[in-house]
Formats: sequence, structure tokens, C-alpha cells
Amino acid sequence: SKRYSITLLPGDGIGPEVISVAKNVLKLAGSLEGIEFSFQEMPMGGSALDLVGVPLPEETLSAAKQSDAVLLGAIGGYKWDNNAKHLKPETGLLQLREGLKVFANLRPATVLPQLVDASTLKKEVAEGVDVMVVRELTGGIYFGKPRGFGTNESGEEIGFNTEVYAKYEVDRIARVAFETARKRHGKLCSVDKANVLEASMFWRKRVMAIAAEYPDIELSHMYVDNAAMQLVRNPKQFDTIVTNNIFGDILSDEASMITGSIGMLPSASLGASGPGLFEPIHGSAPDIAGQDKANPLATVLSAAMLLKYGLGEEKAAKRIENAVLETLNKGFRTGDIYSAGTKLVGCKEMGEEVLKSV
Amino acid sequence: SKRYSITLLPGDGIGPEVISVAKNVLKLAGSLEGIEFSFQEMPMGGSALDLVGVPLPEETLSAAKQSDAVLLGAIGGYKWDNNAKHLKPETGLLQLREGLKVFANLRPATVLPQLVDASTLKKEVAEGVDVMVVRELTGGIYFGKPRGFGTNESGEEIGFNTEVYAKYEVDRIARVAFETARKRHGKLCSVDKANVLEASMFWRKRVMAIAAEYPDIELSHMYVDNAAMQLVRNPKQFDTIVTNNIFGDILSDEASMITGSIGMLPSASLGASGPGLFEPIHGSAPDIAGQDKANPLATVLSAAMLLKYGLGEEKAAKRIENAVLETLNKGFRTGDIYSAGTKLVGCKEMGEEVLKSV
Ligand SMILES: CC(C)[C@H](C(=O)O)[C@@H](O)C(=O)O
Ligand SMILES: CC(C)[C@H](C(=O)O)[C@@H](O)C(=O)O
Repeated sequence: SKRYSITLLPGDGIGPEVISVAKNVLKLAGSLEGIEFSFQEMPMGGSALDLVGVPLPEETLSAAKQSDAVLLGAIGGYKWDNNAKHLKPETGLLQLREGLKVFANLRPATVLPQLVDASTLKKEVAEGVDVMVVRELTGGIYFGKPRGFGTNESGEEIGFNTEVYAKYEVDRIARVAFETARKRHGKLCSVDKANVLEASMFWRKRVMAIAAEYPDIELSHMYVDNAAMQLVRNPKQFDTIVTNNIFGDILSDEASMITGSIGMLPSASLGASGPGLFEPIHGSAPDIAGQDKANPLATVLSAAMLLKYGLGEEKAAKRIENAVLETLNKGFRTGDIYSAGTKLVGCKEMGEEVLKSV
Repeated sequence: SKRYSITLLPGDGIGPEVISVAKNVLKLAGSLEGIEFSFQEMPMGGSALDLVGVPLPEETLSAAKQSDAVLLGAIGGYKWDNNAKHLKPETGLLQLREGLKVFANLRPATVLPQLVDASTLKKEVAEGVDVMVVRELTGGIYFGKPRGFGTNESGEEIGFNTEVYAKYEVDRIARVAFETARKRHGKLCSVDKANVLEASMFWRKRVMAIAAEYPDIELSHMYVDNAAMQLVRNPKQFDTIVTNNIFGDILSDEASMITGSIGMLPSASLGASGPGLFEPIHGSAPDIAGQDKANPLATVLSAAMLLKYGLGEEKAAKRIENAVLETLNKGFRTGDIYSAGTKLVGCKEMGEEVLKSV
């Protein structure tokens, strides 16, 4: 039987609750497909700060690097919001992405027929939405140098960052995006601000160059302000979107809210080699932490992405995806996706229901 | 009687059509309040490129500077999309903003009761939305240096830009935003990415410092990814938003689409002194240009903002705002906001109807 080692990073807030559910689901789906997992839980984020004073302990990063895949719950909370930058939970997450070199962030935003009413968009606009945002994750303004604080020529205080992309960075994320579009509906929209920014002009030039390798994919370009509008106007026009780190941060969150159920949405962050990082796109929700109210399905679906994209175990992944759909079909809902006529359950019970269908 | 000189910049696409309507409305509203206008039309954008080879001729900028206010139609079109950067219509617009030093861009996104069905959001989410986005317009990554193309240490090709804010830039836009919130419902939300970017940490620090001058205003902070979500989830939570140039570009367009009628939305760009720049937020719509199909109301409402924010002529401004509402109440609609049971009119006829109610 196949064996994989998984690093679990429960993190903060509702993180431990949703990771505990996802771990059980992963175990069962694996065992039914002849897969055995060894799990190692490591501290990360605010809980690591409280424990050892840094948001990403060295031991955590090296355990993650040595494993076959990493499953993260959520990080952050009011408690650490005013920390200095190097002591923020978020900084730990950025260090983890950088350390694992996971440059390609895949964020699906899908409106499930069972949950179409959860969207704030009209039914006819929301139903059938199925967008995949491919976000560049280890470059751009998030990591660009120089950055910091200083003074300008007039002696005025300033704060500054650098948006920068190198050829290999755009080329590799573009290839991931074209490959992703090929497995979907063959349409790729590259989002930039090439009417103003040189970094975007360069991005567009490289995406167009790589397009030559993918003559079967229909490529279009859109300015980021227009993309933010079009996601609201008619999200169904999009198949796969590729964009830089900061625009991807904004647009993938907007797209996820358009589905109305961000408690349902997983993500995968992949590198050229080495373990991928899988996490729900929702946050740590400190206000409901420890109350058995969290929706574990985004993390469960992240475990499915882990199987599919991280380990190539499509069958086990499908088991989990189907189990989630079946559980929804049976009417089980956590508070965030509850509507009249469905059955309200807590985080644990939702997990048990999913296990029944795996 | 009072006299003002107005520079009209019709620009490209539907620009000339909507400017011609707005000019007549402005004239009439002025004359009824004892105001006389002298108008000077100048070339700008793609039409200036075709005429004299640059997107913002020197004569246009100096005429604009010498006038009391500037009213712009729209710029851009497929024809000039692949021009080199200094020969893009958009570059002319950026030069105009910089030349007029209009650092504060006010973009209201209001859902009119008459047009609530135009929104793709559910009625209960859309109705009553009334957000004002105050966008910093002459700083940040749009203008920051260094910028351009080059090679990195490894000899790889790169494209790069600088996001930078100086103290005086944040302080002055923050003050405009606090003043704006004071005239509205007293709530200001500052949007940044202070969990990642130093430029945003600096932004937040300065906004908090200026807040001390406005103890009556309720200030909150939100990360830009969350703001992009919250605008979809519950736009009514926002009163006034203040943010940097690029985030403002994205969020104000998203907010405008949430209203469902971007053909209705005006904007004002103001400096510390000197003439303001007023323009509809929609683009030049080359596909319907010259067909008498454009909605002139965004430009008409921009003329109202010109009167109110540019010249302090509140009475004449109110005349125009009321005339627009009355015309909508009578059921007149251009194609972009048409729905069953209303009266479809062209750009010119819409203008004539508004004139009847001024
Ligand atoms: C927590 C934060 C640093 C992070 C980001 O901006 O990338 C988050 O918003 C995300 O999208 O995963
Ligand atoms: C045309 C473009 C340069 C401009 C901008 O990005 O500022 C436009 O999108 C706007 O918002 O006015």
C-alpha cells in the first residue's frame, strides 16, 4: 500500500477544528484506496507566536519541506493584529509559501446548485459560476525589494514597496494557467493593468509569448478594474483567470464571495517540485473559534485538492468531493450556509456525516 | 451675474455625444441661477493623438489650468490600444490628473430606487446602497519611481513599478476623506493591505494620526481583499471609503458595477486649489459611438458635481440632480438601463428630457 507523510498546520481560531475533521476524512478516503498517511502536527501562525515567539518555527518549515503535502487550517486573530511585521501570523504564511516555493495558487470559485441561494447575486447570475483563479504567489509586490520606510528627497517620511516580475516567474505561472485552462474549458483570461504599469506590460508580453505553446487555448486580456466589474456583472464569462499576487488576492476573494459560500472553498498552492500547500480560503474566524460552529467543508475539499494536485490520487480525491456533495444533498448545513428547510449541524457532526459518504 | 470658464474635453468614442448633452444642461441650470459660462473645447486622448500626435497637447493642459473647471467625456478605443505607453490615450489622462494636481478622486456609487433592478445583486442587498469612494489619484504605483524594464542580478528580464506614499500625500487625502464622511453619515473605512505592504502600514499610520483631528468620525480599517468581498456581501455597510490609487481603481469600479448602472455614475477629481476635473466613470464605448445610444446621465451628473464641488454652486447642482431624478421618474431610459415598461430614448432625447426638468 502507498504511504504519504502529511504535515498538518492547524494554526489559529477555527483552524484546529476544521483540520481535525479533514484529517479523519483524508484517512478514510485514503484507506479505501489503499493509501496510508502519517500525520505530523506542527505549530504555525499566532499559536506558534504564543508557543515559541515566531510565526513560522524552523522545525515547522523543515517538517513541511520533508513531507509529501501540507494541509493548513487558518491563521491570524485580533490578538496579534498589532504585532510588528516580523511577528505577525501573516508573515509566517508568507514565509511558508516562500519556503515551499509554491508559486502557483489555484483558487476555484464554484457555485454549487445546492447553495446557489447563498450568493448575494441574483440566481440567474450566480448559477453555474465556475471560475478558477490562478494567482502568482511568491513574487510581485508581496516579496519585491526594495521595500520599507524612509524619507524622500524633500525629507518627507515615506513607505514603499516594489512590484516586480522576472521573465521566469511570469513564464512558469502562465504555463500552469494554460495547463489548468486546458483541463477545464480551454479559456484563459490574463488580468493586469498594462495601460498604466510597466510590470503589467511585461506580464502581458510574457503571457503572450507563452501562449504560442498553447494554440488550443483561447487567451484574452483584461484590465484589473474591469475584471473586478465583470466578476459582478457576469461571472459566468470566466473559465480560468491568471493574474499577479496582489490582483489575485483581491479578485479571488471577490470571486469567492460571489459564490456566497466561502466556507466551502478550498485552495492549492503548488511549486515546480516538492510538497504543495493546501488550505481553505476562509480565515481563522476567531469570533466562533472553539464553539463547534465552523464549516469544515472548505478544509475537507482542500484535502481533496491535496490528493488530486499534490499526490496525484484522483480516485481518493473524487471520493471526498462526492462525499461532500452527498452530505449537502442530504440537507446538512453549518450555520454559514444554513437556510430554511435544511438541517443545521456543527463542525463535528458535519465531519461525521461526510465520513458516512466517503 | 457670475461668470465661469469651463474647459470641455469631449475625448473619444461616445465622449463628444455625452459632453454635448451635459454642456446644454450646464448652460441652462447656470442661467436659471444667474451664472454664465464660457466653454472652450480642447482635444484630448485618442482624438488628440490623431490630430496632433500626443494624448494631452500642451494647449489643452494650459487651457484646463486657466479655467475654473474641466469636464471630460471619455478617452480611449481599440484603435490606440497597442500604442507605445507615451502614445496611449490613458497616458494623457494620467498627465492631466498630474498636471492639474487633482489628488482626490470622489466616486459615488449610489443605487437609485428607480434603477435597483439593474443591479446583478439581489434587491434586498442592492437597495439603498450609497457608497462614496475617495481614491488617491496622483500618487502610489501609478506615478512611483523607479519604474520600467531591466534585468535582475541573474540577468533575467524584469518589469517593475514602485508603490510609494509620502506623509503629505496620505495626510491630505485622509483629510478630504474625513471631511467627506462628515458631510455624509460620519463613517470612514480606510482600505489597505497593511498585513503585507509597508506602503500600506505607513498609509494606516498616517490615517490614524489624522483621525485625531476628526473625533466625530467613526474610522475603521479593512484589508483590500476583504473589502472586495464585503462590497459583494453587504455593500450597505459602507458609507465613505478611502484608499490608494490602485486599490481605489479596482474597488470603485467594483462598487459602481454593484449599482448595476455605471452609465449613471459621475466622478470628481479635486486638488488643493485650481480647477477640478469632472468625468463620468464609464469608458468611451467605441462600439456604440456616434449612434446616439449613449447614456448621457453620468456626464450630466458630473456637471452637477462640477457645480457643487468645483464652483460651490450648490443650487444649480441641485437643479441638475433633481432634473435627472425627474426624468427617470417619468420613465425615460437609454438602452443600458432600459427595462420593460419604461421608455427607450437615445442620448439626445434623454438630454432634451433632462432640459425640460432643469
Ligand atoms: C493573510 C494574507 C497574507 C494572505 C494574502 O494576502 O496572501 C491572504 O489574504 C490570502 O489570500 O491567502
Ligand atoms: C484609464 C485608466 C488609466 C484609469 C485609471 O486606471 O485610473 C481608469 O481606469 C480610471 O479609473 O479612471
